[in-house]
Amino acid sequence: MTGEFAFINRIRERAQQSRVTTPELSLGIGDDTAVFRPRAGRELLITTDLLVEDVDFKLAYAVPRWLGHKALAVSLSDIAAMGGTPRYAMLTLAIPSSARSDEFWEAFFDGYFALAESCGVVLIGGDISATPHGLALDSCVLGDCITGRAIRRSGARVGDGVYVTGKLGASAAGLQLLLRGARVHEADAALEQRALRAHLRPDARVAFGKLLGERGLAHALIDVSDGLAQDLGHLCEVSHVSAVLERAAVPIAAEVGLITTDADAAFQLAVSGGEDYELLFTADDKEAAKLQHLAHDCALPLTRIGEIVAPDASAKVFLRTADKREPLATRGYDHFTV
Amino acid sequence: MTGEFAFINRIRERAQQSRVTTPELSLGIGDDTAVFRPRAGRELLITTDLLVEDVDFKLAYAVPRWLGHKALAVSLSDIAAMGGTPRYAMLTLAIPSSARSDEFWEAFFDGYFALAESCGVVLIGGDISATPHGLALDSCVLGDCITGRAIRRSGARVGDGVYVTGKLGASAAGLQLLLRGARVHEADAALEQRALRAHLRPDARVAFGKLLGERGLAHALIDVSDGLAQDLGHLCEVSHVSAVLERAAVPIAAEVGLITTDADAAFQLAVSGGEDYELLFTADDKEAAKLQHLAHDCALPLTRIGEIVAPDASAKVFLRTADKREPLATRGYDHFTV
Repeated sequence: MTGEFAFINRIRERAQQSRVTTPELSLGIGDDTAVFRPRAGRELLITTDLLVEDVDFKLAYAVPRWLGHKALAVSLSDIAAMGGTPRYAMLTLAIPSSARSDEFWEAFFDGYFALAESCGVVLIGGDISATPHGLALDSCVLGDCITGRAIRRSGARVGDGVYVTGKLGASAAGLQLLLRGARVHEADAALEQRALRAHLRPDARVAFGKLLGERGLAHALIDVSDGLAQDLGHLCEVSHVSAVLERAAVPIAAEVGLITTDADAAFQLAVSGGEDYELLFTADDKEAAKLQHLAHDCALPLTRIGEIVAPDASAKVFLRTADKREPLATRGYDHFTV
Repeated sequence: MTGEFAFINRIRERAQQSRVTTPELSLGIGDDTAVFRPRAGRELLITTDLLVEDVDFKLAYAVPRWLGHKALAVSLSDIAAMGGTPRYAMLTLAIPSSARSDEFWEAFFDGYFALAESCGVVLIGGDISATPHGLALDSCVLGDCITGRAIRRSGARVGDGVYVTGKLGASAAGLQLLLRGARVHEADAALEQRALRAHLRPDARVAFGKLLGERGLAHALIDVSDGLAQDLGHLCEVSHVSAVLERAAVPIAAEVGLITTDADAAFQLAVSGGEDYELLFTADDKEAAKLQHLAHDCALPLTRIGEIVAPDASAKVFLRTADKREPLATRGYDHFTV
């Protein structure tokens, strides 16, 4: 790999080649800070996500182009989860000697910029450092929304329907396969390829999130990163409500079948696996037809999976099956206790 | 250390206790993104800086409270280097098991929030992860300035004076002492303490940078992070000019005397040591009195160290002594080639 300044120049060059037009950007990469003018009538959204080697990914199974895509996608998902439009990105890289080939970074940025361009996002800054330790990526995205229209986690109302885009568990299934030794270049079955891709190159629901925000159709919104059960638990906690999840309604991805044929195990993987990056929201069921229409426009499945009920001291989330209703565990992944 | 969510809640609690008032902040830590309204008539500045264990600091000599201060100061310095006012911060932490005591993080955040509060900055987001690798800190700061008033590196004009705040080389001297085994709790001489402090707990020139921007007195501005020679070289390169540095005028910190008594070696350390976080700028010399007045108000020394000349193919920066003028090497630290 060439020196630090050549590396930065190469990234800047690629950022400048982007076909995204940004009249509000006064200054991108290259000075002490980036400079941009906010759009009138809009408020700003900002989020950052850290991906750490051997926690969030392993170089042994990483596909560099997909890692670049994922580094941006995880933060785009947070902007979508506020009903916002992504605008600008910053990327910080701690680069170990084990990931210092030009090929690796060209492929990484192919994936990063392809996604950025498709979403109208411009890379305006960041930082890089060598490290004697592992690869770490910190991905920051700035977005905006009509002032007052950001959809928080805390707006769920008793009686709301609970909706989720897409299907759940494919990413968790892909991770299981990777940990068992599956590799992208060796996977020949289409379903296995899709599972690996779901984990390594997740799609953020950028268009749907933006439309939800603009139309003002959702009361509370979050993206499914920690797992449906835990994220619905977060939403209920800050909204001071509880939720009843219809077990039969939860859309389980076909990829989960690669890991288990047991229905209970499949359900558990789908609701606690995490990293689905689907959007989970609550809305008035009177809007159901409009919501389905939006989802259809975005080529996304949309499923009503339950409803919001009055706060119940015994649980934040209940699971309803044909014959009973019982608390669902909402604890998920904890970086410091696993 | 307690779990991830307890840790985040503790940081959020501390952020909420801040006495900084922020009417434009709609939503701080705790949702998918932070949400804020830009101030009318202002444009936004954003920067991020990565600090990596064993590259930028060592846990063996770190003072946790000072590390928290420095994590924020390095990014505040970038906002100051645009003539901006810092407003919001985000902090991302990759935390290894070797830095997982509550004492460490309480002290770290004591330093972080003390500086944030003194500068009117609110922590509005970030991310944390455990890591099997080293500690890494990514510090993002958002600021603003009057629209059109950001002071770029590229505005230097032939005939401008070149000015620098403070004195140079104390941080580099402190680093040398630390690498030779000096430790803060053992250093008894005041000068040695000051050198260690200059490296471990640098001050960003927040007030002076903001005033420079508001008064529109500087043509080009950068902070001295890579070393005076290299940063002046950057400024000249993007301004398409050269500079002549007056060797006798460069303000060398007394702390440099702890490392060397040789005048040439002292000068080299002062101009290439880096991490001074002083402000380096060019301005019309007719403004010299106003500039000195601003510096005086900020209790800062301000020194005219040279002038901007027409671009010269033989060097970006020349060094002038009593009897000659010769090119000054402007190459400094490169993360990937050292």
